[in-house]
This record gives sequence, C-alpha cells and structure tokens, in this order.
Amino acid sequence: MTSFRHISFLTDYGLDDGFVAACHGVAARIAPHATVIDVTHLVPPGDVRRGAAVLAQTVPYLPPAVHVVVVDPGVGTSRRAVAVAAGESVFVGPDNGVLSWAVAAVGGALRAVSLTNRELWLTTVAATFHGRDIFMPVAAHLAAGTAFAEAGTEIEPADLVALPAPASHLRDGTAEGEVLTVDRFGNVQLTITAADAERIGIKPGGSVLITAGRHRLTLPYREMFGAVPRGDLVVHADGAGMVAIAVNGGDAAQRLGLPPGARVAISARH
Amino acid sequence: MTSFRHISFLTDYGLDDGFVAACHGVAARIAPHATVIDVTHLVPPGDVRRGAAVLAQTVPYLPPAVHVVVVDPGVGTSRRAVAVAAGESVFVGPDNGVLSWAVAAVGGALRAVSLTNRELWLTTVAATFHGRDIFMPVAAHLAAGTAFAEAGTEIEPADLVALPAPASHLRDGTAEGEVLTVDRFGNVQLTITAADAERIGIKPGGSVLITAGRHRLTLPYREMFGAVPRGDLVVHADGAGMVAIAVNGGDAAQRLGLPPGARVAISARH
Amino acid sequence: MTSFRHISFLTDYGLDDGFVAACHGVAARIAPHATVIDVTHLVPPGDVRRGAAVLAQTVPYLPPAVHVVVVDPGVGTSRRAVAVAAGESVFVGPDNGVLSWAVAAVGGALRAVSLTNRELWLTTVAATFHGRDIFMPVAAHLAAGTAFAEAGTEIEPADLVALPAPASHLRDGTAEGEVLTVDRFGNVQLTITAADAERIGIKPGGSVLITAGRHRLTLPYREMFGAVPRGDLVVHADGAGMVAIAVNGGDAAQRLGLPPGARVAISARH
Repeated sequence: MTSFRHISFLTDYGLDDGFVAACHGVAARIAPHATVIDVTHLVPPGDVRRGAAVLAQTVPYLPPAVHVVVVDPGVGTSRRAVAVAAGESVFVGPDNGVLSWAVAAVGGALRAVSLTNRELWLTTVAATFHGRDIFMPVAAHLAAGTAFAEAGTEIEPADLVALPAPASHLRDGTAEGEVLTVDRFGNVQLTITAADAERIGIKPGGSVLITAGRHRLTLPYREMFGAVPRGDLVVHADGAGMVAIAVNGGDAAQRLGLPPGARVAISARH
Repeated sequence: MTSFRHISFLTDYGLDDGFVAACHGVAARIAPHATVIDVTHLVPPGDVRRGAAVLAQTVPYLPPAVHVVVVDPGVGTSRRAVAVAAGESVFVGPDNGVLSWAVAAVGGALRAVSLTNRELWLTTVAATFHGRDIFMPVAAHLAAGTAFAEAGTEIEPADLVALPAPASHLRDGTAEGEVLTVDRFGNVQLTITAADAERIGIKPGGSVLITAGRHRLTLPYREMFGAVPRGDLVVHADGAGMVAIAVNGGDAAQRLGLPPGARVAISARH
Repeated sequence: MTSFRHISFLTDYGLDDGFVAACHGVAARIAPHATVIDVTHLVPPGDVRRGAAVLAQTVPYLPPAVHVVVVDPGVGTSRRAVAVAAGESVFVGPDNGVLSWAVAAVGGALRAVSLTNRELWLTTVAATFHGRDIFMPVAAHLAAGTAFAEAGTEIEPADLVALPAPASHLRDGTAEGEVLTVDRFGNVQLTITAADAERIGIKPGGSVLITAGRHRLTLPYREMFGAVPRGDLVVHADGAGMVAIAVNGGDAAQRLGLPPGARVAISARH
C-alpha cells in the first residue's frame, strides 16, 4: 500500500471564492494526515497551457505527492478524468493535456486509470465542480492509501491527451521557439533551454541577437539580471533552466510586447 | 472536552499585508496541533453579505472546525463578539450577521456566548484588529480544548444578529430572486435554488426566460456550461445547488451587467 | 540542538507562478515536520522597505521560527546571503536590510553567519532563484536541527546591512515622520508611534492637526475608526501601535494622495 504525506493543488479557481477551501476541506476529511501544498490557483481561467507550464516547472521541487490539477474548461463534457502514476507521484486531473508536461518532466506515465469508481467521489457531484466532488476526493483517497487501480478503469498511458511539446528548433546556429510564459515580474520565459542556447554558442558574458516579429535586438547574456544596470534588458538562464528575457528591476514583457505564444529566435552575436 | 483539529479562517484582510499571517501565528502559538484552512481573505472590505455567502457555501465541505470569520466593519464599536455552536462546529466572529447563513446551513445555532472572557484574548487588544487579538486567540483556545462556555457569557441564540435570508419567491410559475454573488469566472449566482427552478418546470435540456431590469433573455438550461458553444450564455445549477448564469469560457456578469443584489426573475420557456 | 516547528515565509514572488510552491516543496522535502506560515508574497517586486515593514509588524505574533525573507533585487550580485539569530528565532535572507527592522523588533541580532556552506543548498543553484535553491533549503535544514554555525562563516552582527530606522522626530510639540506603509484598506500608517503621539498631547477624544505637503487638516483622534461617521477621516493608533489615518469604510490613501515615504507632521489641536 502506497500512501502520500502531501497533496499538491493547482487550479484556475482564483482566491476570491471558497472553491479552493472547499477542496481543502474535502482533503482534510478524507486524508486528515496529508498536508496540501498549493501550487497556484491563479492560472487564467481555462488556460490549460499555462497550468501545464507552471506545474511542470514546480513538480521537480515538490515531494512525492498526489498532484491535483484542475484547469478544466471542458468540465462536465465527455473529457475523461484520470489519474496518472509517474515518477514517485500520482497526478489527478482532467485528461486535457494539463498534466502532460509535468508527467513528462518526471519521466513519463507508468500507469493510468480513468476515474470511473464513484465510490471514491463525493456522493453528490455538481456538473461544474469536479475539483471538489471528483478530483480532490479521489486524490485524498489515494493519499490515504487506496490502491491506484481502485480509482477506475486502467487505460493506456499512450492514449492520454498530451499538449504539443513547447516548440523549439535549432537551425543554422539559430534557436527558434516561442514565449512559454510570463511571470509576475514580467520576465519572458522562452521555450528554448539554456542548454540549447549554449549549443549554438550563447554563453554568459556574450551577446544574443533576438528576433521577434519586426523587432531585432542585441542584448547581453548574463548569469543574472543584476549584472546589468537597473532598467536594462538582459537575457539569462532562469530558475527553470530556460532562456528568459528580463529587465533588471522592470517588466520585460511589457517593454517588448511579448505575450505567451509569440515566436522568438535567438542566436549568438559576436 | 471537545477539541478541534482544524480552524477555518475567512476575512477581508487581503493578502498584501501581514494581517492574516499574524492571526496564523497566534493560532500556532495557542493551538500548535491545529491546521488552519484559509477560506478566503479577499472578501471586499466590510462586505458582510459576501462573507456570509462564501462561508455558507464552503462550510458544508469543511471538517468539523472552529470557523473564524472576520468581516467586521464595526470593529471597535459596540457590536458584540460571539462564538456560536452549530452542527459539529463552532463559529467565532462579530455578531453582525456574517455567521448567520453558515450557522443556518449546518442546522442552526445550538448555543451562543458573548466573548467576554478576556483571559482568552491577547494581553493587549488593538481597537482595530480584533481578528488577531480576540477572535483568533479565543478560537485557538476552543480548538485546544477550552470549554465553549468558558469563552464568555451565555446568550440566547435567538438574539444573534441574522442577515435577511437571500430573497427568493415562487409566484405563478416564476421564481423571483436576486444576484447572490459573482465568482472569479464571472458566473452569476442567483438566490434561486435549482430545486425551486425544477418546481416551476425548469429542467436541464429546456429553456429559461430571464428578466433582469429591462433585459429579457431566453437561454438554454443545461447541466453544465460546456454543453453550449464557447462564448454562449447558459443557465445551470452550480456547485452550490443554486441557479447560475454563465458564459462558456467567458464572463456572464460583465456581459449582462448584473452585480450582486440585482433583481432577477426566471421562468420556464416552452 | 535547536529545531523549529515553524518556518515563516515572506517574498515578492507573487501568487501567479509556482515560485512559492517550489520553496514549500523544498521545505517539505528537507523538514517534513515543519509547518510553513506564509506572511505575504505580494510585496511589490524588489520593495525591500515594504518587506521589512510587514515582517517587523508580523513577527511579534509568530511562534519561534526560521523566518525566510526573499525580497532580493540584488539576487545573483555580490550581496551576501545571511542567517541571523535574534530572540528565539532565526532570520534567513539577503543581507540588504530587509531583515533589519524585524531583527530589531525582537531585540537585535545575537549572532550572524554568511551562508557559505553549500552542503545545505540545493545541488544546482539558479542565479535568479536563491529563495528556492539557497534560502529555503538552508532554513529547512536549520528547522530540522542543523546547528546555526553550520550554515556558514560567522560574521559580526554589527556588519549586517540595516535600513535606516523609519524617520520620526519630536520637536516643539510636533511629531514629524512619514508614511510607512499603506494597507489593503487604504489606511495610511505613519512612522510615528502612538506612544510618541501621546507624549505631545494627542489623546483619544481629541483632535490632531495633520500637515502633509500643502495639506493642512484637523481630524478627530479616536480609539477606532468606527467612532466617526462612515466616510469620515479619522486618526487612530493602529494594530501595530502606530499612528494611522483612516476613512471609516473608505480609502484614506486615495483620498489624501499619501503614498509611502510622503512626509507628514502631526500635533495636538485644542
């Protein structure tokens, strides 16, 4: 019997309502020994890609856990509810791709079930609140030691919905990708890894040519944004190992007008 | 001796300051065994009705707990501070009605005390921060096993301030009510229960005539908002069992201009 | 061996990303017994002074803990990372002054170390995410019982960077200071203590002459803002024992146009 001391929880529920707390309450009733770690609840409503990105970059730092993820614009439609065993953890959420990047980040799905065992759900299920009535109670039962296979019907991991991997290509000394996400500080994280940047000769201390739409900018590539004067643009490897564009003490996304999804290419400038 | 493993906490303190944390700290000092579940701290400042609605809809999913509620525009005036035993829980907060809907939701007040026992307060009480100096320390002592009657002077449950129940009337096949609350997604929750809607012939698969001010709209009534195309308006029974107006993937409150308190009538459309 | 049951956590990371959760995860892996109390994560990015003020006013209500503070505009530059023993607690963060007011509030630094022991850090350290990779893992090891001196090289407490104490002077019956901070409610907290106000004859029930820029206002000084009619300005001693200007049920900062740092003088008006 596997049980989990931690449940992590990521949603687009926001913090203004009692939605997150109702789920915490459900967890506390079923698995009072478990501690809930809130990843974030401020994913923009229905933004599956953003939820997937935040989860994938956070999970490597979380303890083994049942990770509950509810960014679920298709709640109540025919999309499946699933649990996926991967690494030392279990991921629970809608089968819409939101789990896929995190599952890949911890080594890929080992097993998966469709959540068909209603005995693990709350007695009454609201069509629009599966987080409270299905995902969290199932997760809490798994945290409390219910066997993975008890959660429902075994399905093929290969049949799980997966988001396309973030676009990133190396070609002729240029790395082409897109904006993966923008954080609270306005740092623009690209889909290009720092390792790929290094492969095409971009190294701390050098310069990077950035092409984004009609913009062409040559910027310093540094180990930290504190290495440039306040207010200056800088490119660096961020905390997730991705290439990111920042303004020291400012908001690069706003300065450059680069939203998630915008295409960006970078190359070394000598 | 009754003790509680959980303390729930709902305020209008916001998350920008250290107010919530100071209360968590007070709880941790007095009742280190207890886990605090934050319901929300983003009730608009002083909005007693909003606090009451969120609490009443969340409490049924929380474990037995001491529920601390501080939406208290009259802090420091003569309004009483109270503890109310109801269901398996105890509610602690100002006697301004903010507790009343939740107390009713769990079966009504069994006993009540006015918080007059200063031995359970912090030594110094700031006139404007009773959450930290009175409500949370009293709650933590109750969670740690102090007898309910020790918190102060017994008062008549019937004398507690109660908010008027959310207006909702059935008349000639029409349900009249108002907007109870608007959530993060812009879903407009009415004071009309799904059960009342069913009583006047409104059923999933059918249509609803909505009258709100000069607006008259006929909308589909569905089990979930995913049942209509993205961007379409839809009426459904929400996670709290109330009739709600939503836009699939959008913001109904903004679309319709319906704030809390706006009067709305619904009837079945054939 | 000292260990700590609680870790408090204050940052400018915001709640939209997974940054806070990654740190919680690091703490849970290293010190699974410890409970994390979030102070706030909504300090404006890089606002060291605001972080210092919130921390200093909250810490007196927290249990003995390892207090982790990451408002760190100089992350990755040569600023030191430190741990400071003070009162019954340990403070961990950048040596940029953000700890200084809280350390003073609990009696001053007893010992300090520069965090040079990489064995307590995560294996890989991102130049821009010392909260996750240095501060939190060191704090969690300290909470789990690692000796304070193990965290690095002992340094002189007197050499720690300190913010200038909030400006406040008494002169000829006038207290001169500035706006220390503005809370969620728009209450304007001055750097002038209520004790100093009393020293120059300002007492509940009396009136205060406020001078701020070209503004001159005579306002009632009351024990609580509920003592004046809704919408009226009032001066009072706030929950931190500081003189504050409020509007009963409104936003004084907005009404008066007084941001943090604005100079204000007060005197008794008879």
